[in-house]
Amino acid sequence: MRQKKFMLSEDMIPQKWYNIQADMPVKPMPMLDPQTKKPVTVEDLSGLFCRECSRQELNQTDRWIDIPEEVRQRYANYRCTPLVRAYGLEEALGTPAHIYFKNESVSPIGSHKLNSALAQAYYCKQEGVTNVTTETGAGQWGAALSYAAKVFGLEAAVYQVKISYEQKPYRKSIMQVFGALVTPSPSMSTRAGKDILTRTPNHQGSLGTAISEAVELARMTPGCKYTLGSVMNHVTLHQTVIGLEAEKQMELAGEYPDIVIGCFGGGSNFGGIAFPFMRHNFSGERNTRFIAAEPASCPKLTKGRFEYDFGDEAGYTPLLPMFTLGHDFQPSNIHAGGLRYHGAGTIVSQLLKDGYMDAVDFEQKETFEAGCTFARTEGIIPAPESCHAIAAAIREALECKETGQKKTILFCLSGHGLIDMAAYDQYLAGNIH
Amino acid sequence: MRQKKFMLSEDMIPQKWYNIQADMPVKPMPMLDPQTKKPVTVEDLSGLFCRECSRQELNQTDRWIDIPEEVRQRYANYRCTPLVRAYGLEEALGTPAHIYFKNESVSPIGSHKLNSALAQAYYCKQEGVTNVTTETGAGQWGAALSYAAKVFGLEAAVYQVKISYEQKPYRKSIMQVFGALVTPSPSMSTRAGKDILTRTPNHQGSLGTAISEAVELARMTPGCKYTLGSVMNHVTLHQTVIGLEAEKQMELAGEYPDIVIGCFGGGSNFGGIAFPFMRHNFSGERNTRFIAAEPASCPKLTKGRFEYDFGDEAGYTPLLPMFTLGHDFQPSNIHAGGLRYHGAGTIVSQLLKDGYMDAVDFEQKETFEAGCTFARTEGIIPAPESCHAIAAAIREALECKETGQKKTILFCLSGHGLIDMAAYDQYLAGNIH
Repeated sequence: MRQKKFMLSEDMIPQKWYNIQADMPVKPMPMLDPQTKKPVTVEDLSGLFCRECSRQELNQTDRWIDIPEEVRQRYANYRCTPLVRAYGLEEALGTPAHIYFKNESVSPIGSHKLNSALAQAYYCKQEGVTNVTTETGAGQWGAALSYAAKVFGLEAAVYQVKISYEQKPYRKSIMQVFGALVTPSPSMSTRAGKDILTRTPNHQGSLGTAISEAVELARMTPGCKYTLGSVMNHVTLHQTVIGLEAEKQMELAGEYPDIVIGCFGGGSNFGGIAFPFMRHNFSGERNTRFIAAEPASCPKLTKGRFEYDFGDEAGYTPLLPMFTLGHDFQPSNIHAGGLRYHGAGTIVSQLLKDGYMDAVDFEQKETFEAGCTFARTEGIIPAPESCHAIAAAIREALECKETGQKKTILFCLSGHGLIDMAAYDQYLAGNIH
Repeated sequence: MRQKKFMLSEDMIPQKWYNIQADMPVKPMPMLDPQTKKPVTVEDLSGLFCRECSRQELNQTDRWIDIPEEVRQRYANYRCTPLVRAYGLEEALGTPAHIYFKNESVSPIGSHKLNSALAQAYYCKQEGVTNVTTETGAGQWGAALSYAAKVFGLEAAVYQVKISYEQKPYRKSIMQVFGALVTPSPSMSTRAGKDILTRTPNHQGSLGTAISEAVELARMTPGCKYTLGSVMNHVTLHQTVIGLEAEKQMELAGEYPDIVIGCFGGGSNFGGIAFPFMRHNFSGERNTRFIAAEPASCPKLTKGRFEYDFGDEAGYTPLLPMFTLGHDFQPSNIHAGGLRYHGAGTIVSQLLKDGYMDAVDFEQKETFEAGCTFARTEGIIPAPESCHAIAAAIREALECKETGQKKTILFCLSGHGLIDMAAYDQYLAGNIH
């Protein structure tokens, strides 16, 4: 019987995260304090994030960072996740390419987000924090943080982008089952929210806005820290367990990827799967192509500018050097709520600028077509975000079909779409163009 | 690091299903033709079911039945499923008991139902069938059959119990993504549906009714066979992969269960996890206790009568010897739609009658309390059906806490509840009593 899944037992969960900053030929430019225009320090960041995450954020020297045993133990609930050969998809496409996906949808909350949520909640607890806040788009990150907070005995308050709160009510319910307080953003509970609602009473919300609210709440609440599900370096660091496992699993499959693909919102699942492989490009040992797949309606990588910008709408964060559409960019209401963010993380921005990776953008319709093809051939209904990665994989596989090249393609299935069925309803009804 | 998951690689997927009928000290009484009152034959059943499933249904002699390679290959998409030690739950309860669960929720459609759907669709395809029909309650079985039909190139028509169709709209969408035609039942598309709606225009639907409609459609459509997600012997046979894997995995954990628990609708997940262990009770080698957990609102095992009854509301099926509440029993609209069935499978009914297993019933509130405790400690939001098994496991674990006994408890987590969040909303809002 041909092998479908390549598994690693839980004692193979990586012991260290891979910090790509240590290996980057050109390091990311510093984050700046918006007042003084000086590089922010660990001290500055620690006002907002917990101290250990602040240290990891600015660490440009240590290639490997220990994963605490308590975090690995929680990873063992669902890791190592399977690497799967997509035979069904390959056959449906008639491609000579070999397609693999790393299945992060088997996490109990349904996406890769738990990889960083557990780490952030753990460090907060260690440092005596009692409350955490965050923002969430589609709700994948909010669900992950809500569970991670419960695991380590913290209270969680989540601002969810209003349009997603309404489009995906089940995600709110999931967060509530885990005991979190969930507020649709923009809300009247913060100054940032009030300002936005005063200007635009029907504001649908965006990640930039929700970040402003969560940051403000964290700053105003003693014992409370802010946590983030993407964009920041330490988040992507935690996600490297994805690529580190995948590297070992590709070895088990006896292949090495020619192309590695992730969908792109802030960069955490893309960086998670890509960075461990990219280190072999830096060393000249390999020549893998890396593709970030983003929505055409929020095309920061393909059409944004590389410049210093705020991470949030209100301008509460440090200035970040990144590809951005502007911190007041209002993305349209696509179903892939997790990709509706105006900027890219600083590491990815630098790597894109320096030519170490590519970006492509997709219209919604093509992504749902890809998602349905995947569902019908592999059985898993993918998250609308992950559909972007699948669409990119299908494009590459079809190019192989034309050229006859037998490339090995690896993508990250960042999450399942069982909470996003309303979006599929829209697609099946012909309402997505 | 303590081991959380006990995994088997896909080459350990069982090669044979376990047919408990061969080992039962008292065989199940025969199904009867309602007209002639004679035992039904393979020939009789083959009018409705595919031939191979009909043979398996009546096979009381072969202990082991080969799993076709093509089915095993599809099982490999998600099997072997993990056996998980519920350390988090144990600690929350403060029990000396060791609690394990077999996690069938990792199946791509979210429940154990795919184990039989793939087998039934495969045999139909082999026998030249082009269309399959079925009924579904909560939609777990319908989703499984829809995907399995797509895999083997069959068309699927699913009658979904109306109350579940309305309470859980995402499941309908999942079936539609897989290409199935989904109709809420009772419907005006069949004579059985019309009769019921004429008598009771606001009929909320039940599994018994939906079965009548699916059976009628199968009988009226050339090239079409009926398939079923529970109750029948061949369905439970296919589900024994659960218990056969669990048996090997308990060995890896170095334990043997004192108690094995499954929630109970028609008996497929209960039989799936219980029967492979029960054979060691028959042989006298072990003395495990088996508990079927059912809803207090549909208590066929704890309060039903053992007698011949129809499997459906309209009386289209053979007469089955079973514990039943009567084929016209109207269960209340509990959220565990998969457990709203009036009767138990003939094998389980005989085993219960002969004292080889126990049954307990639970009010909805206790099951959702159990589900939330499980979600917060193990991270997985369980299906409302599975919450019954968890509630039973918690009761047993708390008894161990009182008595100080260190029992080993194994239950089947038959599915996740991510599509059932509306039910959790009701519970969190205090609307479930």
